[in-house]
Amino acid sequence: MHRGAAEMDGGFRVSAGVFSSDPARSRTAGAAMGLDPARSYGDVAEMLDRERQRADGIDAVAIMTPNDTHYRFAAAALDAGLDVVCDKPVTHDFAEACDLVARTRERGRIFAIAHAYSAYPMTRYARTLVRDGTLGPIRLVQVEYIQSGLATRLEDGPQNNRLGWLLDPRRSGQALVMSAIGCHAQHLASFVSGLPAARVAADVGALMPGRKVVDYVSALVEFGGGARGTFTVTQAAAGGENDIRLRVYGEKGMLDWSHREPSYLRLALQAEPVRVVGRGDAFLPPEIIAAGRTPRGHPEGLREAFANLYAEVAQERMARALGESLPELPYPRIEDGAHTMAFIEACVASQASGTWVALASMPPR
Amino acid sequence: MHRGAAEMDGGFRVSAGVFSSDPARSRTAGAAMGLDPARSYGDVAEMLDRERQRADGIDAVAIMTPNDTHYRFAAAALDAGLDVVCDKPVTHDFAEACDLVARTRERGRIFAIAHAYSAYPMTRYARTLVRDGTLGPIRLVQVEYIQSGLATRLEDGPQNNRLGWLLDPRRSGQALVMSAIGCHAQHLASFVSGLPAARVAADVGALMPGRKVVDYVSALVEFGGGARGTFTVTQAAAGGENDIRLRVYGEKGMLDWSHREPSYLRLALQAEPVRVVGRGDAFLPPEIIAAGRTPRGHPEGLREAFANLYAEVAQERMARALGESLPELPYPRIEDGAHTMAFIEACVASQASGTWVALASMPPR
Amino acid sequence: MHRGAAEMDGGFRVSAGVFSSDPARSRTAGAAMGLDPARSYGDVAEMLDRERQRADGIDAVAIMTPNDTHYRFAAAALDAGLDVVCDKPVTHDFAEACDLVARTRERGRIFAIAHAYSAYPMTRYARTLVRDGTLGPIRLVQVEYIQSGLATRLEDGPQNNRLGWLLDPRRSGQALVMSAIGCHAQHLASFVSGLPAARVAADVGALMPGRKVVDYVSALVEFGGGARGTFTVTQAAAGGENDIRLRVYGEKGMLDWSHREPSYLRLALQAEPVRVVGRGDAFLPPEIIAAGRTPRGHPEGLREAFANLYAEVAQERMARALGESLPELPYPRIEDGAHTMAFIEACVASQASGTWVALASMPPR
Amino acid sequence: MHRGAAEMDGGFRVSAGVFSSDPARSRTAGAAMGLDPARSYGDVAEMLDRERQRADGIDAVAIMTPNDTHYRFAAAALDAGLDVVCDKPVTHDFAEACDLVARTRERGRIFAIAHAYSAYPMTRYARTLVRDGTLGPIRLVQVEYIQSGLATRLEDGPQNNRLGWLLDPRRSGQALVMSAIGCHAQHLASFVSGLPAARVAADVGALMPGRKVVDYVSALVEFGGGARGTFTVTQAAAGGENDIRLRVYGEKGMLDWSHREPSYLRLALQAEPVRVVGRGDAFLPPEIIAAGRTPRGHPEGLREAFANLYAEVAQERMARALGESLPELPYPRIEDGAHTMAFIEACVASQASGTWVALASMPPR
Repeated sequence: MHRGAAEMDGGFRVSAGVFSSDPARSRTAGAAMGLDPARSYGDVAEMLDRERQRADGIDAVAIMTPNDTHYRFAAAALDAGLDVVCDKPVTHDFAEACDLVARTRERGRIFAIAHAYSAYPMTRYARTLVRDGTLGPIRLVQVEYIQSGLATRLEDGPQNNRLGWLLDPRRSGQALVMSAIGCHAQHLASFVSGLPAARVAADVGALMPGRKVVDYVSALVEFGGGARGTFTVTQAAAGGENDIRLRVYGEKGMLDWSHREPSYLRLALQAEPVRVVGRGDAFLPPEIIAAGRTPRGHPEGLREAFANLYAEVAQERMARALGESLPELPYPRIEDGAHTMAFIEACVASQASGTWVALASMPPR
Repeated sequence: MHRGAAEMDGGFRVSAGVFSSDPARSRTAGAAMGLDPARSYGDVAEMLDRERQRADGIDAVAIMTPNDTHYRFAAAALDAGLDVVCDKPVTHDFAEACDLVARTRERGRIFAIAHAYSAYPMTRYARTLVRDGTLGPIRLVQVEYIQSGLATRLEDGPQNNRLGWLLDPRRSGQALVMSAIGCHAQHLASFVSGLPAARVAADVGALMPGRKVVDYVSALVEFGGGARGTFTVTQAAAGGENDIRLRVYGEKGMLDWSHREPSYLRLALQAEPVRVVGRGDAFLPPEIIAAGRTPRGHPEGLREAFANLYAEVAQERMARALGESLPELPYPRIEDGAHTMAFIEACVASQASGTWVALASMPPR
Repeated sequence: MHRGAAEMDGGFRVSAGVFSSDPARSRTAGAAMGLDPARSYGDVAEMLDRERQRADGIDAVAIMTPNDTHYRFAAAALDAGLDVVCDKPVTHDFAEACDLVARTRERGRIFAIAHAYSAYPMTRYARTLVRDGTLGPIRLVQVEYIQSGLATRLEDGPQNNRLGWLLDPRRSGQALVMSAIGCHAQHLASFVSGLPAARVAADVGALMPGRKVVDYVSALVEFGGGARGTFTVTQAAAGGENDIRLRVYGEKGMLDWSHREPSYLRLALQAEPVRVVGRGDAFLPPEIIAAGRTPRGHPEGLREAFANLYAEVAQERMARALGESLPELPYPRIEDGAHTMAFIEACVASQASGTWVALASMPPR
Repeated sequence: MHRGAAEMDGGFRVSAGVFSSDPARSRTAGAAMGLDPARSYGDVAEMLDRERQRADGIDAVAIMTPNDTHYRFAAAALDAGLDVVCDKPVTHDFAEACDLVARTRERGRIFAIAHAYSAYPMTRYARTLVRDGTLGPIRLVQVEYIQSGLATRLEDGPQNNRLGWLLDPRRSGQALVMSAIGCHAQHLASFVSGLPAARVAADVGALMPGRKVVDYVSALVEFGGGARGTFTVTQAAAGGENDIRLRVYGEKGMLDWSHREPSYLRLALQAEPVRVVGRGDAFLPPEIIAAGRTPRGHPEGLREAFANLYAEVAQERMARALGESLPELPYPRIEDGAHTMAFIEACVASQASGTWVALASMPPR
């Protein structure tokens, strides 16, 4: 998925990688992608070291490893002078994320986070509608991400590598469901509304009786500026349609987006007909149209959304190389990742105390 | 609406009423319905007194008056030996509701509450699916009721009688949005899931800046038996589609109902196709089929849902008159109304304390 | 259904009727509705005769009898000086319908046809959008009505009275599916588009092998003015959702209405967002708002649509009684019924000849 | 799109091509894809000739050129011993298509047609449900493809190359809308139902007044075995949502698929709840699951559907190379293309004669 997305628009080409901690298996996987065997490594440090010595060495890394390795691989890549695209959660906690913020700034690198949901043309357009005041001041933000993958007791069945680290709370993060999908929901809500969360009262636990990892989080949210919000994520909703949905209400109207129909956005202004806007509609701003690749009605999916992220990182790399200035591109950055980690920590603390908890402040620039 | 519903199946006929506190206006309104002018009153006490003296006096009353009058009119009707159909909220607080519970039991009367949402064939069937174990033990209940009627500052515009008492917190109840629509959402969730709420952490306030009445409540809910829940109601969602939606998830699957398509119910069992069940489907239980009046695909609405409530009250009155026993009919009762008042009080208390609050216990039978 | 609809807005009250050809059964049925037993008849001629002699005799009749009786009962009612609301199909053939047109005009009576689909607020608004030029000149009209009631061989099972005459081609009309639902689809298309059909090429037959009655008609249509159309109706679509859907496309855009969501209309103008208009929206014309009885989001159904028809007939009766003039009300008239019969005859003729067939011309005024 | 699809699963890599008839522009385009400049040609004959002389010469060609070139390029590629993936329409007429059938058989090559709609997992599953008898014998097939791209008079505006040949009836085919999208609709209907069309009565023309090319075709269809069908395609539906939709009804039930939600299939068996099946559902047959790449709820699009076609051609090439036998893969073949051309010719003939016209017979094997 990530390779196809990175290469879709020609901005990147996968040239090297660690595809397994076993060097032989990594080489085999690399060969299947047509890579030079010498550039399929079994170890990240080795890759960074060897690639640095090549004239045609890699420029950037995409980190898609188990959650507990994100921080150290990202830090190492930044230290090696590379740009980073990192899977969520970026770190185990807020402190580590602040450390990555500092390193990214010190090194002057790009640090993008793989939140594809906010890279769809229609979630981008939703953000535009908030920014340009179409909705008026924001009053309420509702986001939810419902899945059913943990609705059965996977703990009792056979477990592959991935399931092994996911079901180990030390490896998957402070709250599994937050690491798996909650990050995406939180980011999407803040991305579109333009509002950071300020305080939460949260219910953090497991819908599945006896489960040790967190499979459910619901929170009441107070956003900066006083807007209210609701946030619900679970992977243990038996029968639940895999769907992330966002609704943002302002003084003048609301917008509604769901992953079920990612190419459409409902915009409902008070006392007007509901408008259904579609990817490709001719009246959309040029940068929104450019984020799609086919006409309205021709389905695109997650692959194209990821490709938008990679295209922007490539675009920013190119601008930096040419010394050109760009308007700020919308891809998620390490600062967004740090805010997400503050959100997770506040939810966990609220569950422990039974009260509202304020989010940690971001480090000053 | 209520007259058409009460008379639809022939169980009731409107014979008398107080249609205004001005006797002349009440008579005019009664005449428009074809009533005997002598039975259109300007005062409830007068109506109860005069009707009691008639051989053909009324058997039951339907109370559709401003919220702050529900308790005293209902108590008076019960004391006069009448059955009652009462609009929500049944009272101002939990204590008054407990008083009505006691009076209803002492007098041996019927006390039904006008929650039409739980009287649709498909919400009835949803309850059946929970009761018969199709979903397995319930894990999560999500309910919301979104409206936009208070998304503009009605406080600043011209106000009719109805708006006058609605915007006066002393008359409309402890939290306006709970009185107006929150009651329905809370009842629907408990009705279908079969679970009373036990504890809440709530955000109670106004989305509209500067507003004195409550136009927004969102709550994290713990239900009896440990199921979790989310509850969100607002009338100040600009552009929000007027919709009440319920999702109930159990160990084996979930069901999803929305007022947008009241004649359909989505049932999704884990690892099976989603099933869309329709009012009128031949495989439904006979009592569910009987709650509809046309084939699948022919729209019915709120009027028919209210008619189901009235038909059941009539059916129960008939059974009592004949000394026959009936299985318990599903119409909402005063005990449900008291639970709703406990829920409202707990939400308000949670907002004040910033913590989780347990609901008051129901009086023992 | 019809009684509730006729009485909903107070324009009519059912006072007399023929509820069975057996006088005793008719009286029993009348009594269940609270009618004077002397006014429940076993014969239409008797009813017309007796009621004419009463000072409080009936003013109008609603004819809901087997199809092969519509013509003679309607003619008798007109001859008795009564206004008529008649179920479809109004007659067996075009010639009889022209005869009813002539009688209606001669007697100066009202003749309304019970097409409820064109009496929903949103189909009314669709017609308004065509009339006011919002869509531009009409280019294409697509209508279909799909049902599944004849998807099993009812011919081989036990048959009640109703099924008996329906499955007898001599009694149910020239093509069963046209009599049952095709009339509605044809009328809705012409009502909203404002266009009469001019020529058809039709496939008329049975999807069910060996069936003697017509359960399927599909036609290519040329409308007056050159617009094209497609028309498909069947009652033998196993699993088919009971739904009538209309799409009308003009030079500037299209509208889409389905009985599945009767309170919403999709309006899509070329190069603009799709608009979803809802019953009750404040920007609608007053006569469209008046055709609904609850706010957007509160479901209404077929009962309220029928009530709109009866309300208009009552309104026109009142205007005539007062000598007032009214703008032309949109309820379907006998001329529309005659056009429907011409459409049916042309489809049947096209099937016989395998070619395009022009519709019979309406008699001049 | 085609390059990404062909390379997605590793079955093909684009190594050479004619990207323009201007050799320099072709080389520039090839270079942007990272191709060897020597293998970017300005002429098809040259490419076929040069590549044949290379040890690593191409194995197959994908033909995405103007419609009037498909036949001669495809014939040349077959004659050069290459496998072919060809855009629709495969030829100008049925005779040419029969010629390609013969050449394909003589040369023993693979000839696949780029109908992506029938390569979605859910349209594949629809075909499976017909084949395994879930629907029973097929009674009715409804297909439509509605677009709005020709709803304005593009003839009067500036025209690029593509528009130039599309609006020239000699170059775009016997009926533009059939070449552009009608082919897809016809193929999808026959692919899923398993039924060839036998006879048609068609309305072929232009919704746009004065237009010279065909922008609208609607047909009544008789399928082999007696099933009926409706077929409607247009590109001139102002405001029309770009959507291809297929419904197939059998004796026992129906299925419904729309491009709006390509990852879902509605299956409605008579007297059972409607089932909504999703791509990725665990109960699906393995080959259907394998045709998707992400879990239910994660959107995929046209790119992945095209990738399924290329993956199958690659799989068949591999099997032939290894001398292994495969079950018949579902990708569309030249015989399907010939049937499509017969369908188009019959529609055009029916318009000319005003009668039903039988399709030409396929050449015997």
